[in-house]
Amino acid sequence: MDQKKSNIGLIGLAVMGENLALNMESKGWEVSVYNRTVPGIEEGVVDRFINGRGKGLHIQGYTAIPEFVSSLSLPRKIMMMVRAGEAVDELMEQLFPYLDAGDILIDGGNSNCEDTNRRVALAESKGFRFVGAGVSGGEEGALNGASIMPGGSADAWPEIKPILQSIAAKAPDGTPCCEWIGPAGSGHFVKMIHNGIEYGDMQLIAEAYWSMKQLLGLDNDEMSAVFARWNKGKLRSYLIEITSSILSHKDSNGKYLIDEILDAAGQKGTGKWAVINAMELNMPLGLIASAVFERSLSGQKELREKAHQYFPGDQQASHDNKEEYQEHLFAALYASKLVSYAQGFAVLQQASTQFSWKLDLGQIAKLWRAGCIIRSVFLNDIASAYAAEPASMNLLLTPYFREEIKELLKGWKIVVSDAAREELPVPAFSSALNYFYSLTSQDLPANLVQAQRDYFGAHTFERRDAARGKFFHENWTGHGGDTQSGTYNV
Amino acid sequence: MDQKKSNIGLIGLAVMGENLALNMESKGWEVSVYNRTVPGIEEGVVDRFINGRGKGLHIQGYTAIPEFVSSLSLPRKIMMMVRAGEAVDELMEQLFPYLDAGDILIDGGNSNCEDTNRRVALAESKGFRFVGAGVSGGEEGALNGASIMPGGSADAWPEIKPILQSIAAKAPDGTPCCEWIGPAGSGHFVKMIHNGIEYGDMQLIAEAYWSMKQLLGLDNDEMSAVFARWNKGKLRSYLIEITSSILSHKDSNGKYLIDEILDAAGQKGTGKWAVINAMELNMPLGLIASAVFERSLSGQKELREKAHQYFPGDQQASHDNKEEYQEHLFAALYASKLVSYAQGFAVLQQASTQFSWKLDLGQIAKLWRAGCIIRSVFLNDIASAYAAEPASMNLLLTPYFREEIKELLKGWKIVVSDAAREELPVPAFSSALNYFYSLTSQDLPANLVQAQRDYFGAHTFERRDAARGKFFHENWTGHGGDTQSGTYNV
Repeated sequence: MDQKKSNIGLIGLAVMGENLALNMESKGWEVSVYNRTVPGIEEGVVDRFINGRGKGLHIQGYTAIPEFVSSLSLPRKIMMMVRAGEAVDELMEQLFPYLDAGDILIDGGNSNCEDTNRRVALAESKGFRFVGAGVSGGEEGALNGASIMPGGSADAWPEIKPILQSIAAKAPDGTPCCEWIGPAGSGHFVKMIHNGIEYGDMQLIAEAYWSMKQLLGLDNDEMSAVFARWNKGKLRSYLIEITSSILSHKDSNGKYLIDEILDAAGQKGTGKWAVINAMELNMPLGLIASAVFERSLSGQKELREKAHQYFPGDQQASHDNKEEYQEHLFAALYASKLVSYAQGFAVLQQASTQFSWKLDLGQIAKLWRAGCIIRSVFLNDIASAYAAEPASMNLLLTPYFREEIKELLKGWKIVVSDAAREELPVPAFSSALNYFYSLTSQDLPANLVQAQRDYFGAHTFERRDAARGKFFHENWTGHGGDTQSGTYNV
Repeated sequence: MDQKKSNIGLIGLAVMGENLALNMESKGWEVSVYNRTVPGIEEGVVDRFINGRGKGLHIQGYTAIPEFVSSLSLPRKIMMMVRAGEAVDELMEQLFPYLDAGDILIDGGNSNCEDTNRRVALAESKGFRFVGAGVSGGEEGALNGASIMPGGSADAWPEIKPILQSIAAKAPDGTPCCEWIGPAGSGHFVKMIHNGIEYGDMQLIAEAYWSMKQLLGLDNDEMSAVFARWNKGKLRSYLIEITSSILSHKDSNGKYLIDEILDAAGQKGTGKWAVINAMELNMPLGLIASAVFERSLSGQKELREKAHQYFPGDQQASHDNKEEYQEHLFAALYASKLVSYAQGFAVLQQASTQFSWKLDLGQIAKLWRAGCIIRSVFLNDIASAYAAEPASMNLLLTPYFREEIKELLKGWKIVVSDAAREELPVPAFSSALNYFYSLTSQDLPANLVQAQRDYFGAHTFERRDAARGKFFHENWTGHGGDTQSGTYNV
């Protein structure tokens, strides 16, 4: 083996790419980095990194693809940290002419899993290998240990495992938060659900924050203290921890920065994709959908300001027993979070069945215990639930979580009910509670929906007193014929 | 002009196709029909129709495409009523060799608007014309007058207008519910939003039904009477009318059929597409999403039965003043419906802007006043609202509906709040109320979401005291560097 060759190449020197390169180098790997040069936009990016944060390290910088590729040992391992979408396809086309059979491309961006399905097939058709690796943890995780979800060309895994596991976060029990997920785009699918859950968690925390502020009248330091307290219990997690820090953070002028930040949330698409994929699988993912829509609505700031003029509302801090009410809010947050994870894991389960991915749901929960944005002690409980009952149809029905929900229901109900009366938006708390009520309803009014569909469209219905899969049509109006919609089938 | 040639051809003799053909013939048009022959599945379909419902009428039946096409006058007008998806593409490929320049294909199925975008371009590239026409009204509408939403090759409109307007429903003022929508897939897009709204309306009615049954303990005849009463007021609409009929309908054994129908709702995809398209446009469409997810969950009947064993719940009929509570339910239903339409029309507006379709929203509301499943007097109010304020950003903020909402809010709040306490699922009522609260909130807790995103991912945020579009990054932790995510851009 040529000692001058790098062990791995990394393309894309934005914050995630820079930090991953530094992380790899710190674990003893020789790293080559490349960034394109775009006059006036991305000039000198490589030089700046090599002479800046990368100075004096075992990192070689390149501004031309042929030299970059030549600098790597065989089989080459090239991690791409570029914007998801066409940029990945373009980059692959640029790389292909310089690769040898067996070389491995790793896409560490937030690519759509269908793109990854396609790219795995494309790369393999050319004799290369392709891994779609979800990487979570933001800039901190990239630098100090991320949660990594690789899937795609299975025989690439032994080659890249030492590097990826070395830069992965370590769970409290010492195991790296990086394991092989499955074939095709399964790694990016799992990362997508992770991100959707992240959207949900953030929205839920935002609703807890807003309820404390609007219903209890707590100030920033008081709210920071509540989150700090919650971070010592069952909700202990990275997002709760940083929320506590954020609420007490003052900017250089000594003001609470949280009050200066505009309430218009951005999004990059993975939350939306999670919902779309759930819909395609015919699986409910309402909590995450509410989080995605709420971000969209938050961005319509001018519209909201106009609407507020017409409907000033009558929210007010009105609850005297603030300590007790904080427990209700804890219950709403914890129970809603449970619903969100139950929905997300049910989507993973359905995808695994439908695409024959053989996902290990307990293993996936373990991968998220450290490094990633949604890391929490709660994920240990999920891993345990799946260890005890691998084929559980829904997390909410596992023994441990069943008992938790029973404890939480009272406070959860009070919060959602009060918010409705006091004109406080809690879309995710509400969505979760309604899902729980629907899930636990032996009967739902979908019989009426089916009757309507048959009435106006001859869509037929099943009967309670007949076997599932046997469909009936009623001639409701006495005219209109007996032709069923099912024959609509040229 | 050859008098023996038919004015229009229709492909696909399922219930919608049959009824449209009969409708056309009854308006004096000569019609040719074609259905494929599939041994053992679709044999004798054409013969059965010609010798059955089509007997003695000016309808010619064909089982071969060349003869079918030859039977039509130029420019040929061929309406396809086949299953949305690949069947349309396959049929187009079968037809192309037999068409002449200028011939017009009309897709009357529930095609995805992106497929229609593509098909318009494809057909035009071959010298043909293509119209994607949403057709609503189910079998009744197809036979007696439908709501038709055609879009695509604009110069096809004068050719097909007489036929399509003749078979369209007539609004109370006599105008046909069929007007040109716009270019490309805009007709199918509008139909898709129509269908999404239909999903929402049906879910809302189901929740009103369920609330009356579970919270008030009304029986089927009592509920039928309530819907009949509502059908005389502001909620007067086809779906309310048939709900009243359905609830009192007895089957041949003298049992109320509604109680025999399994509560597992099917869906064919257009509701889901509406939500997906809204998400792609970054627009909230939460009520329809809740309806789609609730249908999915209704289908998981076994899971719900198992869940119910663990959580039997404590719903009970508990409200004494049943008349007053019916008014609250009326308010919840009407206000939620308003939210759903406001969300749907806002999506149309955004699509119109983004795709340069120049949609006339008031005109679209008028097209839905008769023939289609969501026909209602309420659509007159929407048309009036847009006539008065064509550039309204949101229907809820127009003068008439603002005042309506103010009247309805009290009852709406009570229903959502009570349902939360009494463990009754009302996902659409709740989603609507939470949207209304968010829309009318000058401030939302999205500032915390932005702070979190900047904290863990350097995603930056806007400030309240700076111009929109100016983004800031805080070094929250004192380490991690100043590299922003925005530079993540190889």
